[in-house]
Amino acid sequence: MKIQNSQLEKFKNLHRKSFKFINLDPLQRGGILSKEARKILDEWADGYSVCDYCGGCLDKIKNPPIEEFVHEILPEFLGTDIARITNGAREGKFLVMHAIAKEGDYVVMDQNAHYSSYIAAERSRLKVKFVPNSGYPEFKINVDDYAKVIDEVKNKTGKFPALVLLTYPDGSYGNLPDAKAAGKICKDYNVPFLLNGAYSVGRMEINASDFNADFIVGSGHKSMAASGPIGVLGAKKIYEEILFRKSERYKIKEIEQLGCTARGLTVITLMASFPHVYERVKHYDEEIRKARYFSEKIGNLGINQLGEKPHNHDLMFFESQKLFEISQKHKQGRFFLYSELKKQGIIGIKPGLTKNFKLSTYALSDEEIKKVIDAFGEIVKLDQLCAK
Amino acid sequence: MKIQNSQLEKFKNLHRKSFKFINLDPLQRGGILSKEARKILDEWADGYSVCDYCGGCLDKIKNPPIEEFVHEILPEFLGTDIARITNGAREGKFLVMHAIAKEGDYVVMDQNAHYSSYIAAERSRLKVKFVPNSGYPEFKINVDDYAKVIDEVKNKTGKFPALVLLTYPDGSYGNLPDAKAAGKICKDYNVPFLLNGAYSVGRMEINASDFNADFIVGSGHKSMAASGPIGVLGAKKIYEEILFRKSERYKIKEIEQLGCTARGLTVITLMASFPHVYERVKHYDEEIRKARYFSEKIGNLGINQLGEKPHNHDLMFFESQKLFEISQKHKQGRFFLYSELKKQGIIGIKPGLTKNFKLSTYALSDEEIKKVIDAFGEIVKLDQLCAK
Repeated sequence: MKIQNSQLEKFKNLHRKSFKFINLDPLQRGGILSKEARKILDEWADGYSVCDYCGGCLDKIKNPPIEEFVHEILPEFLGTDIARITNGAREGKFLVMHAIAKEGDYVVMDQNAHYSSYIAAERSRLKVKFVPNSGYPEFKINVDDYAKVIDEVKNKTGKFPALVLLTYPDGSYGNLPDAKAAGKICKDYNVPFLLNGAYSVGRMEINASDFNADFIVGSGHKSMAASGPIGVLGAKKIYEEILFRKSERYKIKEIEQLGCTARGLTVITLMASFPHVYERVKHYDEEIRKARYFSEKIGNLGINQLGEKPHNHDLMFFESQKLFEISQKHKQGRFFLYSELKKQGIIGIKPGLTKNFKLSTYALSDEEIKKVIDAFGEIVKLDQLCAK
Repeated sequence: MKIQNSQLEKFKNLHRKSFKFINLDPLQRGGILSKEARKILDEWADGYSVCDYCGGCLDKIKNPPIEEFVHEILPEFLGTDIARITNGAREGKFLVMHAIAKEGDYVVMDQNAHYSSYIAAERSRLKVKFVPNSGYPEFKINVDDYAKVIDEVKNKTGKFPALVLLTYPDGSYGNLPDAKAAGKICKDYNVPFLLNGAYSVGRMEINASDFNADFIVGSGHKSMAASGPIGVLGAKKIYEEILFRKSERYKIKEIEQLGCTARGLTVITLMASFPHVYERVKHYDEEIRKARYFSEKIGNLGINQLGEKPHNHDLMFFESQKLFEISQKHKQGRFFLYSELKKQGIIGIKPGLTKNFKLSTYALSDEEIKKVIDAFGEIVKLDQLCAK
């Protein structure tokens, strides 16, 4: 080994400069820890900390009370018969696809699906057919189209798809499609239905049984105030033997989980934040109010929200010809928006974006929202400054 | 949802009672955080914290310096051409098997392999053939037997195994087999060779190229002073396209990694602890000295170390007829050992074990080792007390 000490210096002081900033990144807002989780970090941060009293199965650990959390609390919370902890929503989707489908089978998913849904299918060696969105400006999924696409797969291959996936909401526009109608279609066709709730589970009340979903995945780091990577997976009991089949040689170990998953601080923060999360999902109407208010105010500045309007989620996609034009004239070019917001203590919009970007107002105070609106108000004025 | 508030109370105060105990559990000792990692927990514990400045690939993030860590530091540390972060050693093993083998192929592994090696093969729908150990009392792997078992697979199936795996050391006895000779055999047969270094990478100096290993996996939470779950994977460059094949649709996303893996505090603690880990591996001779000292002293009490002797690793397996006999007479039965050690502030031997158990002396001070030896000294005296 020839690693120089000088190379190692930077790893000794890894500070997160954005820690105290207002972070608008949708994938960060729902993962901010509750105070209950934050206060126990030191105790549980070591390696495999939750395994002090493990008998061989993560989900059967009684101290800390993982067993009760996984087998009593989580199924109730998700509206499923059974549940497990995963290393993330994507790992949950891969688990389901890998367990229930055969190589070459089809998965039907919405065009707004997260990239990881597609990649979970690729890793499972499955084919994907998309249900298209409505295009500009709302990019909505008409779930009635699922029937059509399921039929197309059947006609092409002679087999129904192995799985239908719906993203609720999607991570680009924050649209909430009619999951109940999608569930009805899947039931009629007898095709298993997976709901990707990475941006809903932990933010809003959501019950898989309302939608007749066979599977639901959620993301601890995205929406359940947990330290990543961690996710949850709920399912109907009829799939228990398929999803959680045990090893032939190690009788208590679940194959698709590789024995155990989130074995450390991640599951502790998920549990410690859960009482807070369980309370906050009851007040999602307040988040919608804030999002709509923000959308209206920023719309007045020439920054227009796309996706469903009025909007029903805190994740929003915007377009702005005005910001794009400023970037054409500004000395920092397309990085001006990122730079100007940062000056105001605001981050989370990807550096370089001006014409189209997404953000979330989730769990921001009214005061913080006002600060962000004001910052955009100042930024659009740069149009005049540059014109001088 | 009908979760009662009373059910949630226990999640609001999740304390780790064993936090200040001497923890002898081999899977805990190498995962205790460095002080550099511990001091930055608060800043990085939120959800997806490392993704503030992500352009779409975890291993390409420049701030924090994940890119440099993954692509410069780790390959040098592991002795490989390329490296990645995984969600754990088992996830690395599954990744390799899933990527390089076809359903029904064989993996040849040592009988001392960790259960997750077998399960990774099961999840990949592969068959397993074991190289036996030598049995009681040393349970050694004679790596020359790999040639024999590879031939058996070839004779039976007409094909060479898709992969050979060797556990270095194993997690039961802490034996260090002749990995170099195993690598030579694999090279002669032209079969890819995976070294499972979950208990070596981060504890001792280990260089995959010394063994001609095509792949090596390590565990952040087991042996690299990182918060779990996290692991590392190193490989020869010739496997880059197979292991890290990109998505057809999302050109920068690696399929077998599902896009990204350890996206949060886990990778930060791995990096923050790395300078400490890089230093500590140079002093593993000191750990061997302590382990041998402990083995000798506790042997004098009638608690005998199995596995290789003299021992070359901190993970040791013991048997004791004497402790077993006490358990037969003690009012707490087989839980007496656990209970008596706990009274002395020592945990980590599985509750209920007396005749056979494993432990590790890794990173214990001489004073702590003396305390553990003294505790066992008191415990074996219970033999006389019970006899009265």
